Amino acid sequence: MKAEVLTIGDELLRGEIVDSNKSFLSDRLLTIDAEVRWHTSVLDDPEDMVDAFRRAAARADLVLVSGGLGPTRDDLTMAILAETWDRKLVRDEETLRNLEAFFARFGRTMAANNAKQALFPEGSEILPNPIGTAPGCMLEVEGTLFFCMPGVPRELYQMMDEQVLPRLEARRGDGLVTRATLLRTFGLGESNLDEELREVADEEGVSLGFRTAFPDNYVRPMARAASAEEAEAKLQRACDAIEMKLGPLVYGRGEEETLEAVVGRLLDERGKTVAVAESCTGGLLGERITSVPGASGWFRGGVMAYANEAKVDLLGVPAQLIAEHGAVSAPVAEAMARSVRERLGADFGVSTTGISGPTGGSEEKPVGLVFIAVAEGDACQAREFLFPFDRPRHRAVTTQAALDWVRRSLLGEEPTAPRYVRGRS
Amino acid sequence: MKAEVLTIGDELLRGEIVDSNKSFLSDRLLTIDAEVRWHTSVLDDPEDMVDAFRRAAARADLVLVSGGLGPTRDDLTMAILAETWDRKLVRDEETLRNLEAFFARFGRTMAANNAKQALFPEGSEILPNPIGTAPGCMLEVEGTLFFCMPGVPRELYQMMDEQVLPRLEARRGDGLVTRATLLRTFGLGESNLDEELREVADEEGVSLGFRTAFPDNYVRPMARAASAEEAEAKLQRACDAIEMKLGPLVYGRGEEETLEAVVGRLLDERGKTVAVAESCTGGLLGERITSVPGASGWFRGGVMAYANEAKVDLLGVPAQLIAEHGAVSAPVAEAMARSVRERLGADFGVSTTGISGPTGGSEEKPVGLVFIAVAEGDACQAREFLFPFDRPRHRAVTTQAALDWVRRSLLGEEPTAPRYVRGRS
Repeated sequence: MKAEVLTIGDELLRGEIVDSNKSFLSDRLLTIDAEVRWHTSVLDDPEDMVDAFRRAAARADLVLVSGGLGPTRDDLTMAILAETWDRKLVRDEETLRNLEAFFARFGRTMAANNAKQALFPEGSEILPNPIGTAPGCMLEVEGTLFFCMPGVPRELYQMMDEQVLPRLEARRGDGLVTRATLLRTFGLGESNLDEELREVADEEGVSLGFRTAFPDNYVRPMARAASAEEAEAKLQRACDAIEMKLGPLVYGRGEEETLEAVVGRLLDERGKTVAVAESCTGGLLGERITSVPGASGWFRGGVMAYANEAKVDLLGVPAQLIAEHGAVSAPVAEAMARSVRERLGADFGVSTTGISGPTGGSEEKPVGLVFIAVAEGDACQAREFLFPFDRPRHRAVTTQAALDWVRRSLLGEEPTAPRYVRGRS
Repeated sequence: MKAEVLTIGDELLRGEIVDSNKSFLSDRLLTIDAEVRWHTSVLDDPEDMVDAFRRAAARADLVLVSGGLGPTRDDLTMAILAETWDRKLVRDEETLRNLEAFFARFGRTMAANNAKQALFPEGSEILPNPIGTAPGCMLEVEGTLFFCMPGVPRELYQMMDEQVLPRLEARRGDGLVTRATLLRTFGLGESNLDEELREVADEEGVSLGFRTAFPDNYVRPMARAASAEEAEAKLQRACDAIEMKLGPLVYGRGEEETLEAVVGRLLDERGKTVAVAESCTGGLLGERITSVPGASGWFRGGVMAYANEAKVDLLGVPAQLIAEHGAVSAPVAEAMARSVRERLGADFGVSTTGISGPTGGSEEKPVGLVFIAVAEGDACQAREFLFPFDRPRHRAVTTQAALDWVRRSLLGEEPTAPRYVRGRS
């Protein structure tokens, strides 16, 4: 099944926004084995839109359209879809009632121009939009299946997952159902993951997709079977096998389960807390931890000990220690972690001290060097890393390594060395 | 001039990456008055690429192509461009020498497959790429101008700005030159900015583009004239007039000058320092400040006083004060700001304490409420805000308001109320 993704909107062509909808839709289409061959964007212009619809119908079996369903004058999708294939625009009374109710819930009356959102090409099937004003539609013309969906990402995601994908699955000629999930990993690069998992994937009869969103690496196993239940079971077995093979390299599943969310959940489940003492990461570690709702349940707080005086004044790190070993050292990292743990009464203390660049390096202590330490109870351990990335990435991967270390500790796993470890604990 | 932006690469069609190159190129094309009518992406597939090149040549006057210039088997752009119009692929000896020198600089020899990067369609003009291995090319065929550029963003940006745009400007039939710049603002929404600036833009004879990247709002003035010097002078006058009208709502210029970079520069110029005490923002303020290289020159450090005990233990905020007014209050915000300033010996102390949501609100103190305080010397002032955004956006705009307050203080400006202020100082 050859697919085209067509997004409509002047703002896209002016470069005002980056089109993440195309990527989302393409990614989702992988799960029904559609081959996305074309991405197209056109202006809110009748001629250009008609041309785009015609080309797409000529070359693709499946066309996902996003955008142009709003109430303004520039929103033309339904009208142009109808015009392109000589269909009438028909008002759907139920949609109109839903729209009026939608506005009433906010104590408002529907504006006149919203009425166009209840018009659909004759013969199309309406796709409900429970979280926005614009329903979508499905229309089959000349052997091509069109789906028109909103441009608002949140509404698009829901309509794609709840309305479009199930219809596409139901229509598969081969009667197969696909189930996929996202496994989130940290510590191994994409090509290594590929090698590690090739055999497992073959044995389990699933295909694997890979995606990198630094510093994460995602693996997407896809299982096909004759029914949803079988596909889900096959997928689960495959995930179990992958997790058996990769061990704690897999830290989470799905789009939402960030490393900080996983760490928060693990701490919360055990009634444990964490405090942080950050130097080069400057607050990023605390920011990540607190980005998770409910963090006050497991985060005691922390210190941004950016200047050496802050390490001394806020954490009581002996000035002598800094003078002797340097701020970027295992003894100082350990002192920071121990101190913040005690002072904030947390179960875990985590510290970072390093050189994120671009300046500040030396031959002995190059840019990229960083020490992370984790204190738990009376014990404390520091590890040395050399992350060869620019400043923002260095800070990102340092916080990732710190969070991962805490996660592994909570799971009773070895704090494995991400591949950038150059030193010893 | 009708333009098409064509990006090539399987990873785009699989949704593995979001295509920011298209937005960048479209945005840049605004400055030469090209009307971008089509965005297209196709696979690394010869047939699809030939078809895309042909369609683009038929409908557009200008085609910007990105991707497919690498050394691997999937990199086909030059070959396909040549094939589509029956051109030979010709080796450029100078490019080959440059490639060999490029690898030699890293102590490596050029791999065999890099040699294809020195092949160009006969009759094309080579565009140098000083920061990567793949030069681009310009080719005029059938009245359409093609530019082929790398897919690597950094290399694309440089080639577009240094090679492509100057050539396009030189070719303008009307002899006009365009100069544009980006003015960065915070505190006023897009439609308000539009209203405020309409008259100024007309008087100065410039056009204005607007873009929102929450919580910033960008204004792009574009000036056209018969020569580069005249256009630049016109643009400068327009910017002066806009900045006169908007006052300190404009905080910076260009792509790189983030609010934290501006604050860092202003502090650095005055030899002043800042320390932060964050509750709801959890480290984000410190992270933003330290994201700027050289921050150790002006950032003393800070405290993530997330739990109330941390406010007491790390900052010495009287428990009594918290019990009496609540953690989210002006008195506590002030105590936090004063304390961190003194303890870290900074010129400025900045604090945040609020309710970022989704839970934690009450009728008296709803989700979205936040107090920001700034201490300088013996003085300290707290302001109350109600930012009606979800958790991540609430934290982002709170840090933005905090940074902006410091900036305005350093400039001797009134700490103006962003439009979300509901309370009093």
